[in-house]
Amino acid sequence: MTDTIKRRGLMLVLSSPSGAGKTTLSRLLLEADPNIVMSVSATTRAKRPNEVDGKDYFFVTAEKFAAMASGDEFFEHATVFGNNYGTPKKPVMDALAEGRDVLFDIDWQGAQQLKEKARDDMVGIFILPPSHDELERRLHTRAQDSEEVVRQRMAKAADEIRHYPEYDYVIVNRDIDVAHAEVKAVLNAERARLSRQIGLSDFVSTLVGKD
Amino acid sequence: MTDTIKRRGLMLVLSSPSGAGKTTLSRLLLEADPNIVMSVSATTRAKRPNEVDGKDYFFVTAEKFAAMASGDEFFEHATVFGNNYGTPKKPVMDALAEGRDVLFDIDWQGAQQLKEKARDDMVGIFILPPSHDELERRLHTRAQDSEEVVRQRMAKAADEIRHYPEYDYVIVNRDIDVAHAEVKAVLNAERARLSRQIGLSDFVSTLVGKD
Repeated sequence: MTDTIKRRGLMLVLSSPSGAGKTTLSRLLLEADPNIVMSVSATTRAKRPNEVDGKDYFFVTAEKFAAMASGDEFFEHATVFGNNYGTPKKPVMDALAEGRDVLFDIDWQGAQQLKEKARDDMVGIFILPPSHDELERRLHTRAQDSEEVVRQRMAKAADEIRHYPEYDYVIVNRDIDVAHAEVKAVLNAERARLSRQIGLSDFVSTLVGKD
Repeated sequence: MTDTIKRRGLMLVLSSPSGAGKTTLSRLLLEADPNIVMSVSATTRAKRPNEVDGKDYFFVTAEKFAAMASGDEFFEHATVFGNNYGTPKKPVMDALAEGRDVLFDIDWQGAQQLKEKARDDMVGIFILPPSHDELERRLHTRAQDSEEVVRQRMAKAADEIRHYPEYDYVIVNRDIDVAHAEVKAVLNAERARLSRQIGLSDFVSTLVGKD
Protein backbone atom coordinates (compact mmCIF):
# COMPACT_ATOMS: atom_id res chain seq x y z
CA MET A 1 0.00 0.00 0.00
CA THR A 2 1.25 3.46 -0.78
CA ASP A 3 1.45 5.84 2.11
CA THR A 4 -0.68 8.77 0.99
CA ILE A 5 0.08 11.17 3.84
CA LYS A 6 1.99 14.27 2.89
CA ARG A 7 2.75 17.12 5.20
CA ARG A 8 2.28 20.82 4.64
CA GLY A 9 5.27 22.73 6.03
CA LEU A 10 4.87 25.31 8.75
CA MET A 11 6.21 28.80 9.38
CA LEU A 12 8.23 28.74 12.60
CA VAL A 13 8.68 32.20 14.04
CA LEU A 14 11.33 32.74 16.70
CA SER A 15 11.25 36.09 18.45
CA SER A 16 13.15 37.31 21.47
CA PRO A 17 14.94 40.35 22.80
CA SER A 18 18.53 40.52 21.62
CA GLY A 19 20.69 38.60 24.04
CA ALA A 20 18.25 35.73 24.58
CA GLY A 21 19.99 33.27 22.26
CA LYS A 22 17.65 33.36 19.27
CA THR A 23 20.42 33.55 16.67
CA THR A 24 22.22 30.56 18.15
CA LEU A 25 18.95 28.59 18.31
CA SER A 26 18.20 29.39 14.66
CA ARG A 27 21.64 28.19 13.62
CA LEU A 28 21.30 24.95 15.63
CA LEU A 29 17.88 24.25 14.10
CA LEU A 30 19.08 24.80 10.55
CA GLU A 31 22.20 22.67 11.10
CA ALA A 32 20.34 19.76 12.69
CA ASP A 33 17.37 19.53 10.32
CA PRO A 34 17.77 19.74 6.52
CA ASN A 35 13.99 20.05 6.18
CA ILE A 36 14.08 23.57 7.65
CA VAL A 37 14.95 26.55 5.49
CA MET A 38 15.48 30.13 6.58
CA SER A 39 13.19 32.79 5.22
CA VAL A 40 15.18 35.25 3.09
CA SER A 41 14.08 38.89 3.14
CA ALA A 42 14.15 41.32 0.25
CA THR A 43 15.86 44.66 0.86
CA THR A 44 16.71 47.87 -0.94
CA ARG A 45 19.88 48.44 1.05
CA ALA A 46 23.26 47.98 -0.65
CA LYS A 47 24.84 44.55 -0.60
CA ARG A 48 27.88 44.29 1.67
CA PRO A 49 30.99 42.55 0.34
CA ASN A 50 30.52 39.37 2.41
CA GLU A 51 26.81 38.97 1.58
CA VAL A 52 25.32 36.62 -1.01
CA ASP A 53 22.23 37.63 -3.02
CA GLY A 54 19.42 35.11 -2.45
CA LYS A 55 21.04 33.75 0.70
CA ASP A 56 21.51 36.70 3.06
CA TYR A 57 18.94 38.86 1.30
CA PHE A 58 17.29 39.31 -2.05
CA PHE A 59 18.86 42.64 -3.04
CA VAL A 60 16.35 44.63 -5.09
CA THR A 61 15.96 48.19 -6.38
CA ALA A 62 13.57 50.65 -4.77
CA GLU A 63 11.36 50.40 -7.88
CA LYS A 64 11.24 46.61 -7.74
CA PHE A 65 10.50 46.71 -3.99
CA ALA A 66 7.66 49.20 -4.49
CA ALA A 67 6.19 47.04 -7.27
CA MET A 68 6.33 43.95 -5.02
CA ALA A 69 4.68 45.85 -2.16
CA SER A 70 1.86 47.17 -4.33
CA GLY A 71 1.42 43.68 -5.83
CA ASP A 72 0.87 42.24 -2.32
CA GLU A 73 3.94 40.05 -2.74
CA PHE A 74 5.13 40.53 0.87
CA PHE A 75 3.90 38.96 4.09
CA GLU A 76 5.23 42.01 5.90
CA HIS A 77 7.51 44.90 5.13
CA ALA A 78 9.00 47.82 6.99
CA THR A 79 11.37 50.72 6.55
CA VAL A 80 14.44 50.89 8.81
CA PHE A 81 16.91 53.80 8.52
CA GLY A 82 15.55 54.66 5.06
CA ASN A 83 15.96 51.12 3.67
CA ASN A 84 13.06 48.81 2.90
CA TYR A 85 12.90 45.23 4.14
CA GLY A 86 10.19 42.70 3.31
CA THR A 87 9.38 38.99 3.45
CA PRO A 88 8.42 37.75 -0.04
CA LYS A 89 5.48 35.35 0.02
CA LYS A 90 6.28 33.15 -2.97
CA PRO A 91 9.45 31.34 -1.78
CA VAL A 92 7.73 30.65 1.56
CA MET A 93 4.51 29.32 0.02
CA ASP A 94 6.52 27.13 -2.38
CA ALA A 95 8.55 25.66 0.50
CA LEU A 96 5.41 24.98 2.60
CA ALA A 97 3.72 23.22 -0.33
CA GLU A 98 6.81 21.01 -0.70
CA GLY A 99 6.55 20.08 3.00
CA ARG A 100 9.52 22.13 4.12
CA ASP A 101 9.38 24.26 7.24
CA VAL A 102 10.42 27.89 7.06
CA LEU A 103 12.18 29.60 9.95
CA PHE A 104 11.67 33.32 10.63
CA ASP A 105 13.92 35.32 12.89
CA ILE A 106 11.71 38.43 13.25
CA ASP A 107 10.52 40.82 15.94
CA TRP A 108 7.02 41.09 17.39
CA GLN A 109 5.88 43.57 14.75
CA GLY A 110 6.90 41.24 11.91
CA ALA A 111 5.32 38.31 13.74
CA GLN A 112 2.06 40.22 14.13
CA GLN A 113 1.89 41.01 10.42
CA LEU A 114 2.76 37.44 9.50
CA LYS A 115 0.03 36.11 11.78
CA GLU A 116 -2.58 38.27 10.07
CA LYS A 117 -1.67 36.83 6.67
CA ALA A 118 -0.85 33.22 7.51
CA ARG A 119 -2.44 32.30 10.82
CA ASP A 120 -2.93 28.59 10.05
CA ASP A 121 0.63 28.05 8.85
CA MET A 122 2.39 30.00 11.56
CA VAL A 123 3.74 28.77 14.88
CA GLY A 124 5.21 31.43 17.14
CA ILE A 125 7.80 30.77 19.84
CA PHE A 126 9.05 33.51 22.14
CA ILE A 127 12.48 32.96 23.70
CA LEU A 128 13.10 34.55 27.11
CA PRO A 129 16.44 35.07 28.85
CA PRO A 130 16.82 33.27 32.20
CA SER A 131 17.09 36.38 34.37
CA HIS A 132 17.38 40.16 34.44
CA ASP A 133 21.06 39.97 35.45
CA GLU A 134 21.89 37.52 32.67
CA LEU A 135 20.06 39.67 30.10
CA GLU A 136 21.97 42.76 31.25
CA ARG A 137 25.24 40.85 31.12
CA ARG A 138 24.54 39.77 27.53
CA LEU A 139 23.60 43.31 26.52
CA HIS A 140 27.08 44.48 27.60
CA THR A 141 28.56 43.52 24.25
CA ARG A 142 31.69 45.59 24.68
CA ALA A 143 33.73 46.35 27.78
CA GLN A 144 33.57 50.08 27.11
CA ASP A 145 29.75 50.19 26.76
CA SER A 146 28.42 53.10 28.76
CA GLU A 147 25.66 52.61 31.29
CA GLU A 148 23.47 54.77 29.07
CA VAL A 149 23.98 52.48 26.04
CA VAL A 150 23.15 49.39 28.11
CA ARG A 151 20.10 51.16 29.54
CA GLN A 152 18.86 51.89 26.02
CA ARG A 153 19.39 48.27 24.96
CA MET A 154 17.61 47.09 28.09
CA ALA A 155 14.62 49.36 27.36
CA LYS A 156 14.47 47.97 23.80
CA ALA A 157 14.66 44.40 25.15
CA ALA A 158 11.88 45.15 27.62
CA ASP A 159 9.67 46.49 24.80
CA GLU A 160 10.16 43.26 22.87
CA ILE A 161 9.64 41.02 25.92
CA ARG A 162 6.28 42.61 26.73
CA HIS A 163 4.88 41.00 23.57
CA TYR A 164 5.45 37.40 24.70
CA PRO A 165 1.69 36.79 25.24
CA GLU A 166 1.13 37.03 21.47
CA TYR A 167 3.07 33.79 20.88
CA ASP A 168 1.91 30.16 21.01
CA TYR A 169 4.88 28.91 23.02
CA VAL A 170 7.31 30.47 25.48
CA ILE A 171 10.72 28.94 26.14
CA VAL A 172 13.08 30.26 28.80
CA ASN A 173 16.64 29.83 27.54
CA ARG A 174 18.43 28.71 30.70
CA ASP A 175 20.59 26.21 28.78
CA ILE A 176 21.02 26.38 25.01
CA ASP A 177 20.82 22.58 24.50
CA VAL A 178 17.64 22.28 26.54
CA ALA A 179 16.10 25.26 24.73
CA HIS A 180 17.09 23.73 21.38
CA ALA A 181 15.44 20.42 22.36
CA GLU A 182 12.29 22.31 23.36
CA VAL A 183 12.11 24.18 20.05
CA LYS A 184 12.61 20.87 18.21
CA ALA A 185 9.81 19.30 20.28
CA VAL A 186 7.48 22.15 19.24
CA LEU A 187 8.47 21.64 15.62
CA ASN A 188 7.96 17.86 15.76
CA ALA A 189 4.66 18.19 17.58
CA GLU A 190 3.33 20.81 15.16
CA ARG A 191 4.32 18.51 12.28
CA ALA A 192 2.03 15.85 13.80
CA ARG A 193 -0.91 18.25 13.96
CA LEU A 194 -4.06 16.98 12.27
CA SER A 195 -4.37 20.12 10.14
CA ARG A 196 -0.88 19.79 8.63
CA GLN A 197 -1.24 16.23 7.39
CA ILE A 198 -2.55 16.29 3.86
CA GLY A 199 -4.13 13.12 2.48
CA LEU A 200 -4.91 11.76 5.94
CA SER A 201 -8.51 11.04 4.94
CA ASP A 202 -7.30 9.05 1.91
CA PHE A 203 -4.91 7.10 4.12
CA VAL A 204 -7.69 6.38 6.62
CA SER A 205 -9.89 5.16 3.75
CA THR A 206 -7.23 2.57 2.89
CA LEU A 207 -7.18 1.48 6.55
CA VAL A 208 -10.92 1.01 7.01
CA GLY A 209 -11.81 0.00 3.44
CA LYS A 210 -12.34 -3.57 2.27
CA ASP A 211 -9.52 -5.69 0.85
CA MET B 1 16.33 35.58 41.60
CA THR B 2 13.66 33.00 42.19
CA ASP B 3 12.22 31.38 39.10
CA THR B 4 8.51 32.04 39.45
CA ILE B 5 7.26 29.93 36.55
CA LYS B 6 5.19 26.93 37.47
CA ARG B 7 3.46 24.68 35.04
CA ARG B 8 -0.10 23.44 35.06
CA GLY B 9 -0.19 19.78 34.03
CA LEU B 10 -2.13 18.62 31.00
CA MET B 11 -4.49 15.77 30.24
CA LEU B 12 -2.95 13.65 27.50
CA VAL B 13 -5.54 11.48 25.78
CA LEU B 14 -4.33 8.61 23.61
CA SER B 15 -6.98 6.93 21.50
CA SER B 16 -6.65 4.34 18.77
CA PRO B 17 -8.30 1.20 17.48
CA SER B 18 -7.10 -1.91 19.30
CA GLY B 19 -4.00 -3.20 17.56
CA ALA B 20 -2.44 0.21 16.89
CA GLY B 21 0.04 0.09 19.77
CA LYS B 22 -1.63 2.45 22.23
CA THR B 23 -1.07 0.22 25.27
CA THR B 24 2.65 -0.14 24.50
CA LEU B 25 2.96 3.62 23.96
CA SER B 26 1.25 4.34 27.28
CA ARG B 27 3.63 1.99 29.08
CA LEU B 28 6.71 3.55 27.43
CA LEU B 29 5.52 7.06 28.35
CA LEU B 30 4.89 6.16 31.99
CA GLU B 31 8.25 4.35 32.29
CA ALA B 32 10.27 7.16 30.71
CA ASP B 33 8.72 10.14 32.49
CA PRO B 34 8.01 10.14 36.24
CA ASN B 35 6.01 13.35 35.83
CA ILE B 36 3.23 11.46 34.01
CA VAL B 37 0.59 9.57 35.94
CA MET B 38 -2.12 7.33 34.56
CA SER B 39 -5.72 8.25 35.15
CA VAL B 40 -7.40 5.61 37.32
CA SER B 41 -11.08 4.88 36.65
CA ALA B 42 -13.72 4.02 39.19
CA THR B 43 -15.79 0.91 38.53
CA THR B 44 -18.59 -1.11 40.08
CA ARG B 45 -17.34 -4.40 38.67
CA ALA B 46 -15.76 -6.97 41.01
CA LYS B 47 -12.04 -6.75 41.65
CA ARG B 48 -10.07 -9.56 40.04
CA PRO B 49 -7.41 -11.35 42.13
CA ASN B 50 -4.45 -9.69 40.37
CA GLU B 51 -5.88 -6.17 40.54
CA VAL B 52 -4.96 -3.48 43.05
CA ASP B 53 -7.57 -1.00 44.33
CA GLY B 54 -6.48 2.58 43.54
CA LYS B 55 -3.97 1.41 40.92
CA ASP B 56 -5.92 -0.62 38.37
CA TYR B 57 -9.28 0.85 39.38
CA PHE B 58 -11.02 2.47 42.27
CA PHE B 59 -13.44 -0.34 43.14
CA VAL B 60 -16.69 1.18 44.43
CA THR B 61 -20.23 0.01 45.21
CA ALA B 62 -23.12 0.81 42.88
CA GLU B 63 -24.47 3.22 45.54
CA LYS B 64 -21.17 5.07 45.83
CA PHE B 65 -20.87 5.24 42.02
CA ALA B 66 -24.40 6.65 41.69
CA ALA B 67 -23.66 9.25 44.37
CA MET B 68 -20.46 10.29 42.59
CA ALA B 69 -22.30 10.54 39.27
CA SER B 70 -25.12 12.65 40.72
CA GLY B 71 -22.52 14.83 42.47
CA ASP B 72 -20.85 15.58 39.11
CA GLU B 73 -17.65 13.94 40.34
CA PHE B 74 -16.87 12.27 37.01
CA PHE B 75 -15.42 13.71 33.82
CA GLU B 76 -17.18 10.93 31.96
CA HIS B 77 -18.86 7.67 32.80
CA ALA B 78 -20.43 4.80 30.92
CA THR B 79 -22.02 1.41 31.46
CA VAL B 80 -20.42 -1.62 29.81
CA PHE B 81 -21.96 -5.11 30.20
CA GLY B 82 -23.92 -3.92 33.23
CA ASN B 83 -20.90 -2.47 35.05
CA ASN B 84 -20.29 1.22 35.55
CA TYR B 85 -16.97 2.89 34.71
CA GLY B 86 -16.11 6.53 35.32
CA THR B 87 -13.18 8.94 35.45
CA PRO B 88 -13.15 10.76 38.82
CA LYS B 89 -12.32 14.45 38.50
CA LYS B 90 -10.61 15.11 41.81
CA PRO B 91 -7.40 13.03 41.46
CA VAL B 92 -6.93 14.47 37.96
CA MET B 93 -7.45 18.09 39.01
CA ASP B 94 -5.10 17.62 41.98
CA ALA B 95 -2.38 16.18 39.72
CA LEU B 96 -2.75 19.02 37.17
CA ALA B 97 -2.51 21.65 39.91
CA GLU B 98 0.72 20.00 41.09
CA GLY B 99 2.12 20.24 37.56
CA ARG B 100 1.84 16.54 36.79
CA ASP B 101 0.49 15.33 33.45
CA VAL B 102 -2.28 12.76 33.41
CA LEU B 103 -2.47 10.08 30.73
CA PHE B 104 -5.84 8.74 29.54
CA ASP B 105 -6.19 5.56 27.52
CA ILE B 106 -9.82 6.03 26.41
CA ASP B 107 -11.95 5.66 23.29
CA TRP B 108 -13.45 8.46 21.18
CA GLN B 109 -16.61 8.61 23.26
CA GLY B 110 -14.67 9.11 26.47
CA ALA B 111 -12.43 11.66 24.73
CA GLN B 112 -15.46 13.59 23.52
CA GLN B 113 -16.94 13.81 27.02
CA LEU B 114 -13.57 14.79 28.49
CA LYS B 115 -13.17 17.55 25.91
CA GLU B 116 -16.54 19.04 26.84
CA LYS B 117 -15.50 19.29 30.48
CA ALA B 118 -11.82 20.13 30.24
CA ARG B 119 -11.09 21.59 26.83
CA ASP B 120 -8.18 23.82 27.92
CA ASP B 121 -6.36 21.09 29.81
CA MET B 122 -6.81 18.31 27.26
CA VAL B 123 -4.50 17.32 24.42
CA GLY B 124 -5.78 14.53 22.18
CA ILE B 125 -3.56 12.24 20.12
CA PHE B 126 -4.99 9.62 17.79
CA ILE B 127 -2.71 6.68 16.99
CA LEU B 128 -3.22 5.01 13.60
CA PRO B 129 -1.88 1.63 12.47
CA PRO B 130 0.52 1.73 9.49
CA SER B 131 -1.69 -0.21 7.06
CA HIS B 132 -4.88 -2.21 6.64
CA ASP B 133 -2.92 -5.47 6.37
CA GLU B 134 -0.93 -4.75 9.51
CA LEU B 135 -4.10 -3.83 11.42
CA GLU B 136 -5.78 -7.08 10.31
CA ARG B 137 -2.70 -9.06 11.28
CA ARG B 138 -2.72 -7.53 14.77
CA LEU B 139 -6.43 -8.22 15.19
CA HIS B 140 -5.77 -11.95 14.65
CA THR B 141 -4.92 -12.42 18.31
CA ARG B 142 -5.26 -16.19 18.26
CA ALA B 143 -4.44 -18.66 15.51
CA GLN B 144 -7.93 -20.18 15.71
CA ASP B 145 -9.75 -16.83 15.31
CA SER B 146 -12.53 -17.26 12.78
CA GLU B 147 -12.85 -14.88 9.84
CA GLU B 148 -16.12 -13.70 11.36
CA VAL B 149 -14.44 -12.76 14.66
CA VAL B 150 -11.69 -10.82 12.85
CA ARG B 151 -14.30 -9.11 10.65
CA GLN B 152 -16.15 -7.96 13.78
CA ARG B 153 -12.94 -6.63 15.33
CA MET B 154 -12.09 -4.88 12.07
CA ALA B 155 -15.53 -3.22 11.97
CA LYS B 156 -15.04 -2.03 15.56
CA ALA B 157 -11.56 -0.70 14.69
CA ALA B 158 -12.97 1.11 11.65
CA ASP B 159 -15.65 2.77 13.84
CA GLU B 160 -12.95 4.06 16.18
CA ILE B 161 -10.64 5.17 13.37
CA ARG B 162 -13.34 7.32 11.75
CA HIS B 163 -13.14 9.65 14.76
CA TYR B 164 -9.51 10.67 14.17
CA PRO B 165 -10.52 14.21 13.02
CA GLU B 166 -11.69 15.02 16.57
CA TYR B 167 -8.10 14.90 17.86
CA ASP B 168 -5.39 17.58 17.94
CA TYR B 169 -2.62 15.31 16.68
CA VAL B 170 -2.46 12.17 14.56
CA ILE B 171 0.51 9.81 14.73
CA VAL B 172 0.89 6.80 12.45
CA ASN B 173 2.59 4.02 14.39
CA ARG B 174 4.94 2.59 11.76
CA ASP B 175 7.72 2.09 14.33
CA ILE B 176 7.07 2.07 18.06
CA ASP B 177 10.23 4.05 18.96
CA VAL B 178 9.47 6.76 16.40
CA ALA B 179 5.84 6.94 17.53
CA HIS B 180 6.99 7.15 21.16
CA ALA B 181 9.36 10.02 20.29
CA GLU B 182 6.50 11.81 18.50
CA VAL B 183 4.15 11.48 21.47
CA LYS B 184 6.94 12.79 23.74
CA ALA B 185 7.46 15.73 21.38
CA VAL B 186 3.76 16.58 21.63
CA LEU B 187 3.96 16.37 25.41
CA ASN B 188 7.09 18.54 25.61
CA ALA B 189 5.70 21.09 23.18
CA GLU B 190 2.37 21.33 24.98
CA ARG B 191 4.28 21.83 28.24
CA ALA B 192 5.89 24.92 26.64
CA ARG B 193 2.54 26.38 25.65
CA LEU B 194 1.95 29.91 26.85
CA SER B 195 -1.35 28.98 28.50
CA ARG B 196 0.16 26.23 30.68
CA GLN B 197 2.91 28.34 32.24
CA ILE B 198 1.62 29.88 35.42
CA GLY B 199 3.46 32.87 36.82
CA LEU B 200 4.96 33.79 33.47
CA SER B 201 3.83 37.41 33.84
CA ASP B 202 5.51 37.61 37.26
CA PHE B 203 8.70 36.16 35.78
CA VAL B 204 8.59 38.65 32.92
CA SER B 205 8.16 41.48 35.44
CA THR B 206 11.41 40.45 37.07
CA LEU B 207 13.11 40.49 33.64
CA VAL B 208 11.97 43.93 32.56
CA GLY B 209 11.79 45.57 35.99
CA LYS B 210 14.44 47.81 37.44
CA ASP B 211 17.33 46.49 39.53
